[in-house]
Amino acid sequence: MRIAVIGATGTIGQAVCRALASRHEVIKVGNKGGDFQVDLANPDSIRSLYQAIGPVDAVVSAAGRAAFADLTKLTDEDFAFSLSHKLMGQVNLVRIGAALLRDRGSFTLTSGVLSQEPMKGSAAISLVNGGLDGFVRAAALELPRGLRINVVSPTWVTETLKARGMDLAGGMPADEVALAYVESVEGTQTGQVLNTRMFRR
Amino acid sequence: MRIAVIGATGTIGQAVCRALASRHEVIKVGNKGGDFQVDLANPDSIRSLYQAIGPVDAVVSAAGRAAFADLTKLTDEDFAFSLSHKLMGQVNLVRIGAALLRDRGSFTLTSGVLSQEPMKGSAAISLVNGGLDGFVRAAALELPRGLRINVVSPTWVTETLKARGMDLAGGMPADEVALAYVESVEGTQTGQVLNTRMFRR
Ligand SMILES: NC(=O)c1ccc[n+]([C@@H]2O[C@H](COP(=O)([O-])OP(=O)(O)OC[C@H]3O[C@@H](n4cnc5c(N)ncnc54)[C@H](OP(=O)(O)O)[C@@H]3O)[C@@H](O)[C@H]2O)c1
Ligand SMILES: NC(=O)c1ccc[n+]([C@@H]2O[C@H](COP(=O)([O-])OP(=O)(O)OC[C@H]3O[C@@H](n4cnc5c(N)ncnc54)[C@H](OP(=O)(O)O)[C@@H]3O)[C@@H](O)[C@H]2O)c1
Repeated sequence: MRIAVIGATGTIGQAVCRALASRHEVIKVGNKGGDFQVDLANPDSIRSLYQAIGPVDAVVSAAGRAAFADLTKLTDEDFAFSLSHKLMGQVNLVRIGAALLRDRGSFTLTSGVLSQEPMKGSAAISLVNGGLDGFVRAAALELPRGLRINVVSPTWVTETLKARGMDLAGGMPADEVALAYVESVEGTQTGQVLNTRMFRR
Repeated sequence: MRIAVIGATGTIGQAVCRALASRHEVIKVGNKGGDFQVDLANPDSIRSLYQAIGPVDAVVSAAGRAAFADLTKLTDEDFAFSLSHKLMGQVNLVRIGAALLRDRGSFTLTSGVLSQEPMKGSAAISLVNGGLDGFVRAAALELPRGLRINVVSPTWVTETLKARGMDLAGGMPADEVALAYVESVEGTQTGQVLNTRMFRR
């Protein structure tokens, strides 16, 4: 398959590219890095990306920023930023790509377990993740031409916890998290929220 | 308790007001009707509402509009409308009200089962409902002064199905749906997504 990975230069995206590379042609998309660039918050940039990369069988997004801050400190701008980047950015990848992917292609988005297992500071991220999970369940019912869509809901990634000096308990290495993305791309499921804990080796 | 019900003139809101009226002072808030008016999509209007009604122990929202349309027909404006009305409108009720509610007060918002049980046409609504569920789970961890927050996730209301000429199977009368709101206001739970099916009589 010909697969575009958005966020290919990130912690999860790099692992997804490694996991897919032996069996597929992987197109690496970043914001500043990668072979192609996109700004998910800008629909025109998404349209240009699809035009630049040409026909693909799968789009994987392991990108999307959202604000982490105390509930009382989250500003209107923090919410607007989170909604336009991680939430509508990924939704627009699907809305714009639905007419462009090859028949029986697939979308795989990224949310996160904070929607179900929140922590202090996660109100905007939990909102965004819950929104993505709800959108994907619904969009699967309507995508044309046999297109599929799933969302991977990662738990904390070990590399991320390490980089932030946080407790590693409960974390999963990015290479294990990547298995959920592989399942979404190569399997037959649609409308699923894939909790990465199901993919622990 | 002194309770403000937003959407008090609606199908669900009227039933919530009936269920609370015998034991509490209920302040009925509508968009055009009711004793007080608010536009949830406008934060300044929410601020004015809180100022107009004075101190309350509970805020119940049974309001919030979102767009229902085929995935390929939903416009950028449909998504923006849904995010600013049902999603951020209710989130802003909480963000603005968190400093104003009486100690140990509560917020009760409304999402809907379409986040978990989508149908064709519900992509934007499923997104919004999932976002509300995620937000509420997280916000509960951080609300000050013993404030609580829950979200009621109603199944189809019988009166609504009737009004739209839809099949009544699976619907619940508004007066039963209202029991979930009563539980949220009078009980001790917080951070919960209350599926109204648990409140069938
Ligand atoms: N890591 C975790 O523990 C964890 C847990 C749960 C969920 N998640 C979610 O998983 C996703 C990826 O996380 P990560 O830790 O792998 O992220 P990361 O290491 O910070 O990488 C982010 C990636 O997104 C790209 N990016 C940044 N801004 C962008 C924009 N405006 N448009 C398009 N791409 C953009 C970056 O490209 P450049 O490098 O070119 O700037 C990079 O490839 C995020 O949505 C995150 O919330 C992560
Ligand atoms: N009914 C169902 O089957 C069902 C099922 C699941 C979820 N829900 C959700 O439950 C909520 C209430 O549904 P419903 O059927 O009771 O609605 P409804 O009968 O249409 O009533 C809507 C209520 O919201 C008020 N309202 C409208 N626009 C507003 C605005 N911009 N700001 C503040 N208030 C506004 C209306 O006030 P005015 O009358 O003054 O205009 C009215 O009180 C909605 O969020 C809906 O998505 C409903």
